[in-house]
Amino acid sequence: MTDVLAPGAVIGILGGGQLGRMLSVAASRLGFICHIFEPGAEPPAGQVAHRVTTASYDDEAALRAFAEAVDVITYEFENIPTSALDLLEGLRPIRPGREALRVSQDRLVEKNFLADLGLQTAPFANVETRADLDAALATIGAPSILKTRRFGYDGKGQARIMQDADADDAFASMAGAPSVLEGFVNFSHEVSVIAARGLNGEISCYDPGENVHKDGILHTTTVPANLKSPQRMDAVLLAAKILNALEYVGVMGVELFVTPGGLIVNEIAPRVHNSGHWTQNGCVVDQFEQHIRAVVGWPLGDGQRHSDVEMLNLIGDDVDQVPEFAKEPNSAIHLYGKAEVKAGRKMGHLNRRTGPAN
Amino acid sequence: MTDVLAPGAVIGILGGGQLGRMLSVAASRLGFICHIFEPGAEPPAGQVAHRVTTASYDDEAALRAFAEAVDVITYEFENIPTSALDLLEGLRPIRPGREALRVSQDRLVEKNFLADLGLQTAPFANVETRADLDAALATIGAPSILKTRRFGYDGKGQARIMQDADADDAFASMAGAPSVLEGFVNFSHEVSVIAARGLNGEISCYDPGENVHKDGILHTTTVPANLKSPQRMDAVLLAAKILNALEYVGVMGVELFVTPGGLIVNEIAPRVHNSGHWTQNGCVVDQFEQHIRAVVGWPLGDGQRHSDVEMLNLIGDDVDQVPEFAKEPNSAIHLYGKAEVKAGRKMGHLNRRTGPAN
Repeated sequence: MTDVLAPGAVIGILGGGQLGRMLSVAASRLGFICHIFEPGAEPPAGQVAHRVTTASYDDEAALRAFAEAVDVITYEFENIPTSALDLLEGLRPIRPGREALRVSQDRLVEKNFLADLGLQTAPFANVETRADLDAALATIGAPSILKTRRFGYDGKGQARIMQDADADDAFASMAGAPSVLEGFVNFSHEVSVIAARGLNGEISCYDPGENVHKDGILHTTTVPANLKSPQRMDAVLLAAKILNALEYVGVMGVELFVTPGGLIVNEIAPRVHNSGHWTQNGCVVDQFEQHIRAVVGWPLGDGQRHSDVEMLNLIGDDVDQVPEFAKEPNSAIHLYGKAEVKAGRKMGHLNRRTGPAN
Repeated sequence: MTDVLAPGAVIGILGGGQLGRMLSVAASRLGFICHIFEPGAEPPAGQVAHRVTTASYDDEAALRAFAEAVDVITYEFENIPTSALDLLEGLRPIRPGREALRVSQDRLVEKNFLADLGLQTAPFANVETRADLDAALATIGAPSILKTRRFGYDGKGQARIMQDADADDAFASMAGAPSVLEGFVNFSHEVSVIAARGLNGEISCYDPGENVHKDGILHTTTVPANLKSPQRMDAVLLAAKILNALEYVGVMGVELFVTPGGLIVNEIAPRVHNSGHWTQNGCVVDQFEQHIRAVVGWPLGDGQRHSDVEMLNLIGDDVDQVPEFAKEPNSAIHLYGKAEVKAGRKMGHLNRRTGPAN
């Protein structure tokens, strides 16, 4: 088991935002040293990690030095340039592996992957030309939503098509980027499963959380989610199917639409996920530690939930309410160390413990 | 309320061991930046804090630069040289304040302080000369225990006197250091209260934990402690009395012996305390965050416990069992990032969640 790392080993994390920050804290709890690679100056994760490399993803010397200074590499975001991954994977293990990134970096590849597994997705069609869009609309119809295949997150790179007349504007807004047209799904609510797979193939899932979005950004996640017992089971089984198919190592967020016809996979994220932040105050081993345990080859936590939690994202000037939140007796504040407040920027989150788990 | 610090402010911590490390992580969760001052190289806290000053406590320039780089100063240990405190307190607020340090740095001063508050302590007498020891033994009798007045911890600087004939060896082992003779207390068990007082005088106590020592070092702390309801109330009230008397700001550990005649104060520690580590997995706001909240002038957490927990210290090569502990479904591992394992060295601890709190 040479793949198992002992405390004192160095974990390299690509990306220095809040996810890298919370991964770093979790890793330190297990006695690991963290080294962040991040192009931006003064990254949030740099305040809590032992070492930081500030360099661009096309700086080959910096990437090489980073890889040689760490024992394993993981990441907080899926849109890492392929050239950087090509260089790094020759030097150190990257977990989760390339296949998960290849699939999740491209909406079309991801949809086809999910459909091939027999999972339900929204109806979708590839759109590279204006003619493709017309053809797609003829099949899928409006309302629907045009999304760039790559680099979209938090509602960015998306355009709604409420009627056929919106097609021109929507196509123009993609600025020539290859896109996917997705049909609207008539769902009652969204849930997500935070699932983990260990180096030895064991799988552990947290209880699904129910997500509410505001302005295209996650607003709250509540556990337990409003799900019937068989739906809960379905959610976990389909997440496991995805992780096994990818021979995945680490934590993945799987977003699901709940419909009368069953669960529909919205998207997958090959990393710790905003909708799993509640685990910090709901479980003995949270999603960040779970990811680190997988990446270093340790046994996974069992995912058991001891508390009911509502996670509230603090976006932009929501963070001004922290003095009020600090007075709440059962709320845990988690701030990301970002100096500048901007509209739409994730500044922190609040985990409200609403009671013991049933 | 200019004393209230906002996220982004810098907290200076004197001491870079595991307590400074866990304080630093808690502070970062609230969006604060941490700066460690520590004479030793590569301190455990340095792996998770944003900045580290490596300098001795008699390096005035380094102390001055440290103070000027931070907004408030706190500490992880009570034996900070007085000269350093004198310099620092002219530059930045030190919390908890000097009075708590003055009292707790000297066992004799501490015992007198507690007795003056009307609290029960073990019988004690000042011992500066060999003749003092004879006089003390004539009053207190054997078995008893001779302890240096200053710089003792984890059983260090102590000599047991089982019979009068042990007096010579015990006195010699103090090497001329001013000491206190303490009578043995016939107690059934030891508990400790982790108490906090905010900048505005509010007080919050965690549920008392029951402590078991091994070889003079804390071995386990278990919550809930074996205490009757009035004892639990007594414990909390006497802790509050101590904090109020000192106009204390921060978390304090108060060790108590449980006897048929009531609770006897063993000692107080003006800092986060090993016997409060269980709060990390038993409460929404743990002792480290509670201390930081006090120090930055925020409202305190209410101390409510959601889980029963057994904390197990990992001393020396206990840490070799971490791979086994990692398999336990309800156990949280906390390691301190110490590279070298030494006998008697605190390497980490395990918080076993044993069930929901009643």
